[in-house]
Amino acid sequence: MKVLIIGGVAAGTKTAAKIKRINRDADVLIITKGMDISYAGCGLPYYVGNVIADKSGLIVNTPEKFKGLTGADVLVGRDAYKLDAKAKKVYAKNVNTGAEEVYDYDKCVISTGASSIVPKMPGVQLPGVFKMRTPDDAIDLREYMVNTNAKKAVVAGGGFIGLEVAQNLKKQGLDVTVIDLADHVITNFDPEISEYCERVLKRNGIKVLVSTKMESIAGTDKAEGVKTDKGLLEADIVVLSLGIRANTAFLKDTGIEMMPNGTLKIDDQMKTSIPDVYAAGDCVTTRNFQTGKPQWAPMGSAANMEGRVLAQVICGIDKHYKGVLGTAIVKLPEVNAARTGLSEKAAKEMGYDVVTALTVTDDKAHYYPGSAFVSIKLTADRKTHKLLGMQAVGAGEVDKMIDIGATAISMGATLENLEDLDLAYAPPFSTAIHPVVLAVNVILNKINGVLVSMTPSEFLAGAAKGYKIVDAQNVPTIQGALHVVLSETNGPVEGLEKDDKILLVCKRARLAYLLQLRLKAFGYKNTVVLEGASFFNDVVVDEKKK
Amino acid sequence: MKVLIIGGVAAGTKTAAKIKRINRDADVLIITKGMDISYAGCGLPYYVGNVIADKSGLIVNTPEKFKGLTGADVLVGRDAYKLDAKAKKVYAKNVNTGAEEVYDYDKCVISTGASSIVPKMPGVQLPGVFKMRTPDDAIDLREYMVNTNAKKAVVAGGGFIGLEVAQNLKKQGLDVTVIDLADHVITNFDPEISEYCERVLKRNGIKVLVSTKMESIAGTDKAEGVKTDKGLLEADIVVLSLGIRANTAFLKDTGIEMMPNGTLKIDDQMKTSIPDVYAAGDCVTTRNFQTGKPQWAPMGSAANMEGRVLAQVICGIDKHYKGVLGTAIVKLPEVNAARTGLSEKAAKEMGYDVVTALTVTDDKAHYYPGSAFVSIKLTADRKTHKLLGMQAVGAGEVDKMIDIGATAISMGATLENLEDLDLAYAPPFSTAIHPVVLAVNVILNKINGVLVSMTPSEFLAGAAKGYKIVDAQNVPTIQGALHVVLSETNGPVEGLEKDDKILLVCKRARLAYLLQLRLKAFGYKNTVVLEGASFFNDVVVDEKKK
Repeated sequence: MKVLIIGGVAAGTKTAAKIKRINRDADVLIITKGMDISYAGCGLPYYVGNVIADKSGLIVNTPEKFKGLTGADVLVGRDAYKLDAKAKKVYAKNVNTGAEEVYDYDKCVISTGASSIVPKMPGVQLPGVFKMRTPDDAIDLREYMVNTNAKKAVVAGGGFIGLEVAQNLKKQGLDVTVIDLADHVITNFDPEISEYCERVLKRNGIKVLVSTKMESIAGTDKAEGVKTDKGLLEADIVVLSLGIRANTAFLKDTGIEMMPNGTLKIDDQMKTSIPDVYAAGDCVTTRNFQTGKPQWAPMGSAANMEGRVLAQVICGIDKHYKGVLGTAIVKLPEVNAARTGLSEKAAKEMGYDVVTALTVTDDKAHYYPGSAFVSIKLTADRKTHKLLGMQAVGAGEVDKMIDIGATAISMGATLENLEDLDLAYAPPFSTAIHPVVLAVNVILNKINGVLVSMTPSEFLAGAAKGYKIVDAQNVPTIQGALHVVLSETNGPVEGLEKDDKILLVCKRARLAYLLQLRLKAFGYKNTVVLEGASFFNDVVVDEKKK
Repeated sequence: MKVLIIGGVAAGTKTAAKIKRINRDADVLIITKGMDISYAGCGLPYYVGNVIADKSGLIVNTPEKFKGLTGADVLVGRDAYKLDAKAKKVYAKNVNTGAEEVYDYDKCVISTGASSIVPKMPGVQLPGVFKMRTPDDAIDLREYMVNTNAKKAVVAGGGFIGLEVAQNLKKQGLDVTVIDLADHVITNFDPEISEYCERVLKRNGIKVLVSTKMESIAGTDKAEGVKTDKGLLEADIVVLSLGIRANTAFLKDTGIEMMPNGTLKIDDQMKTSIPDVYAAGDCVTTRNFQTGKPQWAPMGSAANMEGRVLAQVICGIDKHYKGVLGTAIVKLPEVNAARTGLSEKAAKEMGYDVVTALTVTDDKAHYYPGSAFVSIKLTADRKTHKLLGMQAVGAGEVDKMIDIGATAISMGATLENLEDLDLAYAPPFSTAIHPVVLAVNVILNKINGVLVSMTPSEFLAGAAKGYKIVDAQNVPTIQGALHVVLSETNGPVEGLEKDDKILLVCKRARLAYLLQLRLKAFGYKNTVVLEGASFFNDVVVDEKKK
């Protein structure tokens, strides 16, 4: 069996290695356009910030090493430009010699990945303008930054890579501005979480301009700034992080089925619409495990799982890929942010009776050094109590919370399945009531009417208009609010009428919740707790982690 | 409704607080023997090590503060000595005044917890002998240690608390020996994991003597040593951490149903065998969620969940507690160790067709600073592919791995449910192939016959006898083994016959696995990979975390 794999980063090398493991007799050849294979694409921003000091850290395998480890052949510098599905041949140009080459296959795997989108606008070809997609991009950027003693950078695009590059440039001492056309950065998060992250970035000295259109790059011999619809931003370095586009243009003539965004349509066995042509990685659209709908998940983690399934399918094993939950995580200055499952908006669009709750808590025993806050937003279906999504942001271990959430959602868990979860507790690792269990308790309280609360989004949308604000903190900080201390509340409160619409606010909503229950007992009918007050005034940011 | 709660640490205070939240009109009174309520029992060892500097860090709430927050009354220093179930009265002695007091109830909650077991042997009452159960124990120990300038300590009992105290004493500069009657410390782990932890402790300067019987404590005016069946161990400080016993002796006359270990038998609504008497926390035996069998889980995390269920039940809400998985975690010097679900032994006893696999991997991208190793042992049923248990040890984030495992086991996950899990990946948080997914792949490979391997336990039991040992590392370290380099293996290997019994060994079993596949392709019939070689020579201990 002759397997030809076009593209040799994550999905391609994984597929090749696994095929050779299953069937040593298979003749596996990877041809790839670039000169590097199997590189750490997700690590590139950290090379820019010198977190990864040496470029050797970015390259997982060389072609020679890979051949030795796996037995699969690799030819670099081969730019595939045509696939003849009937003749089962792929045509490629040897990038170094210019020669045209033809490769036969019995099975062909498209794992050509995706490339950075470079807009057609003046200045994009100037020195000082960089992408962030291959090791060379990162190496070139760091070199340029050092050699030119760059002071100012603009990162165009506030996705994960953009924000990672921005903070690594900031770490290197540059003045950094992130611009994005959308009204928020990291738009795969719910808007209030994105907005929170924007405030964190700003507080850490990274400027963020949303709803901002890049018009051109200023400069004659080199980049000197970015012209936007809001004015000129000076910049010695411009990083284009505007998204990626699947490298599938060379397949257009084949009639292969593609999604509107140019990714390949595949089934759950990674088969394309053309017989004996398979695909995996950033160039395919897989599907969402929860919704069953197509979803593009250009992630190293998915690429590896897809490659593993694909290799088995090619070797005749009946494997199916279940798809993604849209799980993602990003390290920001001071906090981490992560998500899994449906967003609030997506859940509503799917017709669920959506309820959300945001809970702020510690990730470890409060008295244990290094404990830090996490804010967990759960999205659930009010009817079935099914957990639909989780988003988390905080200085603490959001990765753990999201991995629990992803596992639970994968298994179709209801909130009741999770309220008694026996998770690992000791003071250096968690709180006696685990943060995820606490978050589940809170949303169950809300569903059951025990807690009546307002989400940050509702608050931001003006839902608190007409409410009297009560500051439930022991030491009040909210100007103009009535200060009510829970432990001194043993009857009706002076200044509050039983029918008043009252918004109860404190740092983590815990005291506010307790006060709500007490006020209810004393006949107050319209109290509402504000969830996650930290989303508005940052009062809970953990000083310890700064 | 008059609710009397006997005992005010975790379960008692949780129950009281939650009842008052649901029903402010309930008359809730906690009586408790000690002078502290709601303290951080799990934090005590860290006070000894000055990780928690101030004793105020140990006390979560005072009675006054608690009353203010919850509305529940607390009387400290009340030693309940009798319960009259017919008259619905509890008799207690006022510890301070000596007065006998009587308390009525409509509903009574037993949350008296458990006390340290103090063996009847000479010397246990000497100064310098301590327990580790209450804040006073920790405060007294630290004070004594500092005041007497103690140099040597013996910790009797190698459970979690014993090991935590040992390393905190070591941190304070003492020479520390842990002794245990059993043949291993932390016996809730599989033996090879316990043994590994023992080696880690020893390497970090903590002596460990297992299968050692304490006979008496030596000394006249103060503790000077521990006499054991293996000789005298000098000690200025002796910590008794021999386990705990439920504080239920005062209920013996009531005829209340108890387990053989003196804990109270309860149903999943926390009801005891006596009408209107409930119980929660360390003094009850709950049940195992997987097996349905009774299981004692004296943990702060379970106590809180039990209290939450119990409060709702008392308030007329139909709630049931699902029980525990035996999840537990402990921080050791250099590594962390955690477990959930069935042990290998328990799984076998339940009749499962047990398969286990140990996988050693990084917890973060290998090139990202701070990445550290984790060894994950999965236990599964060969027939149904159901995940039954997970144990993990390593310098990396074992808490995350175990929490994923606990969630999966709770939901009844099969390995196939987990092999495509979309968990959070970015270099600062995880590896592209998540450690848990990798561990699942490995055990599936083993079940499917793709990987033929030997577990550390099998190796320790002598299963490798008669095998030729092949060192598959790139740089060989195993004396007397044949060195075989994967990338140079393209045919039969000199020195190995096709029928030889061959044990393939490398640090993390990855190269050994790849070599096995290659040797198979070249006709070798009896190769076996050794899982987790790090369990024998510690080659993979992460230098970065030291």
